[in-house]
Amino acid sequence: MSLLDLRRKYVPAVPKCLVDIASVSFTPLKETTSLGDLDAIKAQFPRTFGRPILAAALEPALKRPLKIGVVFSGGQAPGGHNVITGLYDALMEIDKASTLFGFLGGPSGIVDGKYLPLTGERLAPFRNCGGFDLIGSGRTKLETKAQLEKTQAVTKQLSLDGLVIIGGDDSNTNAAVLAEYFLENKHPTCVIGIPKTIDGDLKSQEIETSFGFDTACKTYSEMIGNICRDALSAKKYYHFIKLMGRAASHIALECALQSHPNLTLISEEIAQKNYTLEEIVGIIADLVVNRFKKGKNYGVIVIPEGLIEFIPELKALIDALNQSKLKEDEALSADVKRVWDMLPKSLQQQLRMDRDPHGNIQLSHVKTETLLLELTEKKLANCFDYKGKFAPVCHFFGYEGRCAYPSHFDANYCYGLGRNAAALIARGLTGYISALKGLSKPVLEWEAMAVPITSLMHLEERKGTLKPVIRKALVDLHQAPFQYFAKNRAKWQIEDHYQYVGPIQYFGQPQLVETTTLTLSLENA
Amino acid sequence: MSLLDLRRKYVPAVPKCLVDIASVSFTPLKETTSLGDLDAIKAQFPRTFGRPILAAALEPALKRPLKIGVVFSGGQAPGGHNVITGLYDALMEIDKASTLFGFLGGPSGIVDGKYLPLTGERLAPFRNCGGFDLIGSGRTKLETKAQLEKTQAVTKQLSLDGLVIIGGDDSNTNAAVLAEYFLENKHPTCVIGIPKTIDGDLKSQEIETSFGFDTACKTYSEMIGNICRDALSAKKYYHFIKLMGRAASHIALECALQSHPNLTLISEEIAQKNYTLEEIVGIIADLVVNRFKKGKNYGVIVIPEGLIEFIPELKALIDALNQSKLKEDEALSADVKRVWDMLPKSLQQQLRMDRDPHGNIQLSHVKTETLLLELTEKKLANCFDYKGKFAPVCHFFGYEGRCAYPSHFDANYCYGLGRNAAALIARGLTGYISALKGLSKPVLEWEAMAVPITSLMHLEERKGTLKPVIRKALVDLHQAPFQYFAKNRAKWQIEDHYQYVGPIQYFGQPQLVETTTLTLSLENA
Repeated sequence: MSLLDLRRKYVPAVPKCLVDIASVSFTPLKETTSLGDLDAIKAQFPRTFGRPILAAALEPALKRPLKIGVVFSGGQAPGGHNVITGLYDALMEIDKASTLFGFLGGPSGIVDGKYLPLTGERLAPFRNCGGFDLIGSGRTKLETKAQLEKTQAVTKQLSLDGLVIIGGDDSNTNAAVLAEYFLENKHPTCVIGIPKTIDGDLKSQEIETSFGFDTACKTYSEMIGNICRDALSAKKYYHFIKLMGRAASHIALECALQSHPNLTLISEEIAQKNYTLEEIVGIIADLVVNRFKKGKNYGVIVIPEGLIEFIPELKALIDALNQSKLKEDEALSADVKRVWDMLPKSLQQQLRMDRDPHGNIQLSHVKTETLLLELTEKKLANCFDYKGKFAPVCHFFGYEGRCAYPSHFDANYCYGLGRNAAALIARGLTGYISALKGLSKPVLEWEAMAVPITSLMHLEERKGTLKPVIRKALVDLHQAPFQYFAKNRAKWQIEDHYQYVGPIQYFGQPQLVETTTLTLSLENA
Repeated sequence: MSLLDLRRKYVPAVPKCLVDIASVSFTPLKETTSLGDLDAIKAQFPRTFGRPILAAALEPALKRPLKIGVVFSGGQAPGGHNVITGLYDALMEIDKASTLFGFLGGPSGIVDGKYLPLTGERLAPFRNCGGFDLIGSGRTKLETKAQLEKTQAVTKQLSLDGLVIIGGDDSNTNAAVLAEYFLENKHPTCVIGIPKTIDGDLKSQEIETSFGFDTACKTYSEMIGNICRDALSAKKYYHFIKLMGRAASHIALECALQSHPNLTLISEEIAQKNYTLEEIVGIIADLVVNRFKKGKNYGVIVIPEGLIEFIPELKALIDALNQSKLKEDEALSADVKRVWDMLPKSLQQQLRMDRDPHGNIQLSHVKTETLLLELTEKKLANCFDYKGKFAPVCHFFGYEGRCAYPSHFDANYCYGLGRNAAALIARGLTGYISALKGLSKPVLEWEAMAVPITSLMHLEERKGTLKPVIRKALVDLHQAPFQYFAKNRAKWQIEDHYQYVGPIQYFGQPQLVETTTLTLSLENA
């Protein structure tokens, strides 16, 4: 029997508080405002601002058929299908006459009225499986008046009691806008968000983690561990590994905690310390030289995807290039020109030519790992202390982890988030993110919550105007995960403390198959 | 308890014929010659040519302390440590006063007399673990007279009864040379080779597979499956995945059989059909266009590492560039010039500049996946049938799989190969490769063999002179694995038949954890 067959048969564990799902109600736990710009957020969300965080409680069962729509928004994350199966199973337990619709291809499926009724039979092959391929996903935002109107019309036509948006920070911001809009129009569809993103940057005190982060980090750590072991065996390569994760360095940090590469750059620290590009290259070159002195001409260096935006002088260069829409570099200030001159010719060429339709530099196209590697190579060539042959190898891990089979943690977590979303809609609640807390404890003890989306918001400039958005949670340098990393990294640099976590296991000892991220266990310690 | 701790405790299964190891003897099974150039091979290996393949048999136990040296040669492959633990455990069973030495950093460790006594305590942390980090590896060849003399001196000084060389085709060729040299000099150290390489290109009727191929292919297939699921979910990317494997396409073929990407190029077929670069690009572009017509603007394409050498006209171009040591392209013939003109500017630049110390083009530096992607992009831009946005993403998987935890198959296979090597040396046999046969059956039924290394040899030109070497086993287009692939690939191209094998599992149902490659099961069907 294949892993696929076996995973399909897995029955997720259900938190005690979500077992009798028809009886789950919610009670106020503590007041909220927003993360910043209170007045502005309140003004834009008069009906959903300032409501309390809710905790699950038991009340007499409410048994009536519900109609719910669900949609994936944005990039894939392991566990997405289990949000839907959790939602579906809860609906059937509440009332077998309930209906679940899946909107196709992301939020545009709502606007275009493209959906699929999701039955038990249709869901069976997707239980505990990775991917978003049951209904697809997309990046359309529901922002314009026309889009909001269409969404209202479609949800009205389907008589939806609720709409569940499975997405990241932007998609949940969208959910808040929709909830407010529906309330304003006395349209009864409740809108509930689900915290999805492998990047781990959608979190708060109640939202301990976003789903998918656990599985993605374990998958990348499997690969990083294998590469560390290869480096230690072959003893001749420097592996530069860039990891997906957008702006925040949560993935890089978690993978560093799991696999102990020799060096892991954390963007948030680089910004805080105001490092120059030259200083960062200096750190890498020092590592290579110091290891060489110990007879080690190999190593592993981990780089977060968003790094380039966090190097202040590079950010200044990019801003200058964007603002002047320069094709050439003559008009750059001396400071910025110095950084420009440091860049390899190929990157200068790319920055000149490769612009988006607005003329802006396409940051995601910049190969940070190649940039650092080339600059390190150049620096080492001029370094008298280093007589080794520098043999660097580049890797970028991202797509490898977004659609992996969810770990037990993500399978259970998503299933619970889906069940909780069903209960929230059954109780007529809108504008909340479904949350589960106490995630370092056994699943049965997890607590179900609802977090007002507005409580995570502040204002940010988007396309030139201030907009209310969920604030991305970057790595907090004062919190336990980074502190633990900072305390231990010195010995990982010179001695080889590589850890080999291996592939995710689904069978065997609970300690092996149930454990979640070190980020969570350190935060909850 | 971590996977590492649990793997260390795993006890490999032992074939019945290798249980009572002190009683294992060998009996002639069938005569051999060589794969080609019989007279030349016979002339160079007068003492080891033409001996029979041997099968394990039981005879009265021979209990005496043995001294054996072991060395890793060449690239890492999962299971290497288990060859050593199998060897060690067998030695201890034969006589507790036996000694095992590990030569450090590959064959240069023999020449330089750098070694480590391997004790049970030292081996414990490496049992069933990936990597070659116990003693390291290297690519030095034992070829020159001076090297052969030093090897003899060191093995004499240590009074070695046997030397076990864990390596690929070149390293086993080396083992044959050493065995012959020792016999010529009446030096009593036996030389036994172990078939190691993830590439799967060291095999014969008796050597059904090289170790590491199973684990590496499973690890790459895990990643390819995840990427296929991401392609199917996001519905907007074309993933070009290059796979390690040197000249042969065994890895690409096995991964295709496991994960069913939309297109997998098999170098051996391309050479046989004499495809031009333009035709290959045409095949890819046709796939993209045909899928686009079915509403699918995404897909996954797998490319073997060695492809470029198998495109006849590209090989001609490279030969021409190498022969003339051209820095410019003026002197190229019209045919070759046509191919040159087709190449992207960046690759032309690279071919002009990036030469090895002999002035030859460094083929392994050519990014085949990028080349095909850029040419496909260009072709699609001129294609009226294709109105999609072509969004390609490149991947290269290699180092991710060479040091993974060995699968149960590789853990058991390697342990058995090590035990068998001990028995061969105990019986004074030299110049053989340790082999296990019947690998599609349960481990207990595997049969132990010894294959004369000379039987795998023929003459090849190396650095201008004909040399006796083991012939690389390329993908045989007439055999079952390719035939099965060829019969089924059409439907994988347009329909999406992606398979998601997921990460290697070590616990649970035997069918899940014990199964080996589809290549082997098709070959043995």
